[in-house]
Amino acid sequence: MNMRLTHLDDAGNARMVDVTGKQPTVREAVATGEVRCSEHVMSALREGTVPKGDVLAVARIAGIAAAKKTPELLPLAHTIGVHGAVVDLELAEDRVVITATVRTADRTGVEMEAMTAVSVAALAVVDMVKGVDRSAEITGVKVVAKSGGRSGDWRRPE
Amino acid sequence: MNMRLTHLDDAGNARMVDVTGKQPTVREAVATGEVRCSEHVMSALREGTVPKGDVLAVARIAGIAAAKKTPELLPLAHTIGVHGAVVDLELAEDRVVITATVRTADRTGVEMEAMTAVSVAALAVVDMVKGVDRSAEITGVKVVAKSGGRSGDWRRPE
Amino acid sequence: MNMRLTHLDDAGNARMVDVTGKQPTVREAVATGEVRCSEHVMSALREGTVPKGDVLAVARIAGIAAAKKTPELLPLAHTIGVHGAVVDLELAEDRVVITATVRTADRTGVEMEAMTAVSVAALAVVDMVKGVDRSAEITGVKVVAKSGGRSGDWRRPE
Amino acid sequence: MNMRLTHLDDAGNARMVDVTGKQPTVREAVATGEVRCSEHVMSALREGTVPKGDVLAVARIAGIAAAKKTPELLPLAHTIGVHGAVVDLELAEDRVVITATVRTADRTGVEMEAMTAVSVAALAVVDMVKGVDRSAEITGVKVVAKSGGRSGDWRRPE
Amino acid sequence: MNMRLTHLDDAGNARMVDVTGKQPTVREAVATGEVRCSEHVMSALREGTVPKGDVLAVARIAGIAAAKKTPELLPLAHTIGVHGAVVDLELAEDRVVITATVRTADRTGVEMEAMTAVSVAALAVVDMVKGVDRSAEITGVKVVAKSGGRSGDWRRPE
Amino acid sequence: MNMRLTHLDDAGNARMVDVTGKQPTVREAVATGEVRCSEHVMSALREGTVPKGDVLAVARIAGIAAAKKTPELLPLAHTIGVHGAVVDLELAEDRVVITATVRTADRTGVEMEAMTAVSVAALAVVDMVKGVDRSAEITGVKVVAKSGGRSGDWRRPE
Repeated sequence: MNMRLTHLDDAGNARMVDVTGKQPTVREAVATGEVRCSEHVMSALREGTVPKGDVLAVARIAGIAAAKKTPELLPLAHTIGVHGAVVDLELAEDRVVITATVRTADRTGVEMEAMTAVSVAALAVVDMVKGVDRSAEITGVKVVAKSGGRSGDWRRPE
Repeated sequence: MNMRLTHLDDAGNARMVDVTGKQPTVREAVATGEVRCSEHVMSALREGTVPKGDVLAVARIAGIAAAKKTPELLPLAHTIGVHGAVVDLELAEDRVVITATVRTADRTGVEMEAMTAVSVAALAVVDMVKGVDRSAEITGVKVVAKSGGRSGDWRRPE
Repeated sequence: MNMRLTHLDDAGNARMVDVTGKQPTVREAVATGEVRCSEHVMSALREGTVPKGDVLAVARIAGIAAAKKTPELLPLAHTIGVHGAVVDLELAEDRVVITATVRTADRTGVEMEAMTAVSVAALAVVDMVKGVDRSAEITGVKVVAKSGGRSGDWRRPE
Repeated sequence: MNMRLTHLDDAGNARMVDVTGKQPTVREAVATGEVRCSEHVMSALREGTVPKGDVLAVARIAGIAAAKKTPELLPLAHTIGVHGAVVDLELAEDRVVITATVRTADRTGVEMEAMTAVSVAALAVVDMVKGVDRSAEITGVKVVAKSGGRSGDWRRPE
Repeated sequence: MNMRLTHLDDAGNARMVDVTGKQPTVREAVATGEVRCSEHVMSALREGTVPKGDVLAVARIAGIAAAKKTPELLPLAHTIGVHGAVVDLELAEDRVVITATVRTADRTGVEMEAMTAVSVAALAVVDMVKGVDRSAEITGVKVVAKSGGRSGDWRRPE
Repeated sequence: MNMRLTHLDDAGNARMVDVTGKQPTVREAVATGEVRCSEHVMSALREGTVPKGDVLAVARIAGIAAAKKTPELLPLAHTIGVHGAVVDLELAEDRVVITATVRTADRTGVEMEAMTAVSVAALAVVDMVKGVDRSAEITGVKVVAKSGGRSGDWRRPE
């Protein structure tokens, strides 16, 4: 297994990897994550005893906007065209489940864009429920699938 | 328990809560989180068989910078003075443990700033190890303590 | 009437006016504006024959986020704490009517923040309906009331 | 007429439309708009009894910079290369007339970039004259022509 | 002489220094710098054989806007209110001389804001003349005076 | 010699030059610059009597991040893909020497991106040492080589 970190040079100095030699091709990445809330809050959200209104829309929009902000947030990430982004939120028993799908026709993969979208959508959920539930916790943020690019398709083993 | 979400009005529409009546006082929040990596990668990081160089510095700096970007990332968060920020990273057995402490002398708490710092530092770690370990996963991002402000001091129960 | 533009010095050079001598006090500004759409689109939006879903939430959130971006957009505007922001959208006969209320406890008025919130919420509406109505037009963006600060309260004459 | 809003999915949830299948081609959009000021201010601006200095330069530059900020301001807009931008301001009887032309060689049209340039240039004008004329109002912001892309050339009917 | 760098902790890790204990007071910093150009370009700029038009306005505005962006550019800089900014440009024999004065009524000094304003105004000049003079060089960017804050007034020795 | 400034139109108005007709090709630019510090500080940095820790990493990362921010800082610069960036810092006798290399596969040269990276890395160094050395000064920021694009390869004469 190659243990070389591509973001560092031989001396261990951070750098932005040169991708000028890579071809623009269609690439997609899917990431998921969860916000665990008290069942109290979740049941209120599901049953509408809380005016949930724009809650999910705010998180969706924050996630999509964040995908575009990835190169500002991650110092070594490339400026990349985000050419498609979907953020889904589902209200489960004791958690909000978030899935982000990001697509590009550019030179690098969009795994970090998808994980950033999930993370920021999750932070937006926490921001909105924190007044009633301080215990909210973000867990399980990970890439679950990617396609396109030199390394081809990949799906996280169950 | 008050189930009213402060970020929504009676009709469920998103709004930025009016805090003009709150006093600027010193407030602090501490958040933690983890990036789970393969033991393979972690032992390499710890033992230096991987040139780890700037890895932790990149994550630290990304986290501090992200604390300042919170109002850009969370649509309903207030523009707030970030007056102190520390991001610590520790290499444990099978994970990188991240702790962020944010301080302000402004009108609102900085819980979201601390959680944003942890989340983005974690994303930066994932970005750097993803070339050698696609399984990296962000977990347990949560506020563990806060002090100052009207609601006073709080510490997450063990 | 004083015709001197405060944003220019004696030689006509742009500058950011020094407000270090002003006191932080509570200030509010209200601005309005409209997006004129074809009646076709408006009736569809009102009657739900179009899946309107997040349309108004997207515009609301874009407007609130834009209020915070005012100093980035207007070169001579001061960095200011946005301490409260509400953006309302109403579906009238042939237009979407937008009202933004911005509040601060800082050193300058927030008229430009309110007008920026209205303008960007309007742009977001246009962005969403442009696929079905290219004629959409933004009109009547103006401050209608302000309070607080040295110049005191003001209401636009009918 | 197709009433389907492309920015929403079947459930009405906001999304960024996938344009990875579109080809990068040269596209142009022209938008116009106006800032209505008191004749008093306008005649002073025209006749130079007000030191107008950088006023138009500030608005021009704010408009050009804003075209590049469109994907930050409009949550569902794509990250796109802005490859040319001109913002013209003309001093008419009782208004400043603004025209923005934006060009790209990328995957989507630049109508929103042109309208954003006009809107922000207009806000910059209002910001500069508001000290002497609170009545300033932005009107008639609209796309007047576009060319390139799948839907081809279009000119707004008189 | 105290050789301790305040931006690092005992282990050498970067941090944002805690300034919550400092008082908001009026502070000012002045910085200068130069862009050396070929005499050819300078004489053309001075004598108007080049249409210099908005050149100085663009640099002035870029500098003022950059002062506000300092906390985004410098990872460890505090979010701070920029409450006044002036950028002057003077056409000398073989160089453009830039002076920036920044003022705040906040918790930290604005030396870095003034140096950032000078640097970015200088970069804007280089950007505009680079098509006719590749030799352009930025030199002598430094703080020349500061006032206010705990360390009081200071003026750079001649 | 052509004295026409490409960023201005015939009337001297600032504009973003239309590059839609240029081809995306691989381009590279190298810029250098220096931060002059007191020998005191430099010898402490070199000999480790100062805990230098993350100092160089902070500057490196600030420089790389700044290359991506060029179109936000320079009003007339194009939005461009930054596809590779390296920032090196070397501790010389009485100065820190900075070299930035930026690469792209896009429509315009990256000279300004390289100079921006050097300038901001230098500002970050100044920010970190200013507490112990107010005399720090940024000098000699210039492009030293470029390759690719229509104007081909160029190297600054010694």
